[in-house]
Amino acid sequence: MHRAQIGDNLTVGLLNSKIGDGKVLAIKKDHIEMEVCLTQEPPEPIPLTLIVALPRPKMLKRILQSAASLGIKKIYLINSWRVEKAFWSSPLLEPERLKNELILGLEQAKDTIMPQIHLKRLFKPFVIEELSILVKGSSDNKPIALAAHPKAAIPCPQNINQSAILAMGPEGGFIDIEIETLERIGFSTVNLGRRILRLETAVPFIVSKLF
Amino acid sequence: MHRAQIGDNLTVGLLNSKIGDGKVLAIKKDHIEMEVCLTQEPPEPIPLTLIVALPRPKMLKRILQSAASLGIKKIYLINSWRVEKAFWSSPLLEPERLKNELILGLEQAKDTIMPQIHLKRLFKPFVIEELSILVKGSSDNKPIALAAHPKAAIPCPQNINQSAILAMGPEGGFIDIEIETLERIGFSTVNLGRRILRLETAVPFIVSKLF
Repeated sequence: MHRAQIGDNLTVGLLNSKIGDGKVLAIKKDHIEMEVCLTQEPPEPIPLTLIVALPRPKMLKRILQSAASLGIKKIYLINSWRVEKAFWSSPLLEPERLKNELILGLEQAKDTIMPQIHLKRLFKPFVIEELSILVKGSSDNKPIALAAHPKAAIPCPQNINQSAILAMGPEGGFIDIEIETLERIGFSTVNLGRRILRLETAVPFIVSKLF
Repeated sequence: MHRAQIGDNLTVGLLNSKIGDGKVLAIKKDHIEMEVCLTQEPPEPIPLTLIVALPRPKMLKRILQSAASLGIKKIYLINSWRVEKAFWSSPLLEPERLKNELILGLEQAKDTIMPQIHLKRLFKPFVIEELSILVKGSSDNKPIALAAHPKAAIPCPQNINQSAILAMGPEGGFIDIEIETLERIGFSTVNLGRRILRLETAVPFIVSKLF
């Protein structure tokens, strides 16, 4: 916004509402005045619940921006054996900070619908008690549940035409017992080919395959 | 390598050659000694030539790592109207620095084949004199030439089963006359949907669609 001048026409959006055009009427020290006309619906979300083992803060920022720009609306940051404990103390995990990263992603994609983020610091209770219910879905919406896993025999499916829950491990991957726990509640493990990709590359790669 | 201990078995690869296993025999101040057995071919490259309007250095690092991890072997960094001139003075463009970023990507994907990078500071001569020849390909390998462009009417194709040349514009996109110049030598413009993605998200997204 810092380069806007009086008279400029900008694309604007109201959080969790429509998008449209805005004309800058006045620029004050702490706010600007605009004439705003909101006419368009934001772009369609993608029906994906993303479950990510909490990455290091620098990577987390990028993942959140990228996920928001791709249209992902439900994100769970979870613990896993190989997640460094210190990552859970990052100030980036404060709700306002998380929201700021997501807004950058929404702005990039001209979207307005704020994704929900959930923080789950205990792997097993989360998977057994909560994720197992998400995986079941509802009578008219049974999601496919996938865990990205380099050792998996099956490649990631394409153009699935249904909603999905996708679990991505930490650097080094989920450990065997975590994979077993996910499989027990209905997850299938899938690979992305022989190359191991970093989370920031793997997320758009899989989203593009699935939808 | 900083956590390696004597006796550890590591996956190792020789640049532009095979990969295999290595056992750490000794750790010295400035080098380590390993017993190395190289048996496997590196993973298949993807038959994509990536042409990117030079991004800001921070983004360039990530793109290079990501492109190398995805198996892209030919990268052109080119000028475009909306590329900031200062980006061309970045020390990151020194060959050794570029190589370091690519090696990080190769290590991530357990690949050994170093991508080639070409720097092209003049858009029009590059497109007219060099890119036009690349687009023609050879009698047994005619690549598909695509320019990612938000205004394009056609969506990005899927599973193309042929080689491709992909041009990605700067923040704000290629300008109209640049798109016209690309179209004149045989490029088709394609969109990635309504959402505008940042380069670091768009590259793995498109690679996943095409291959």
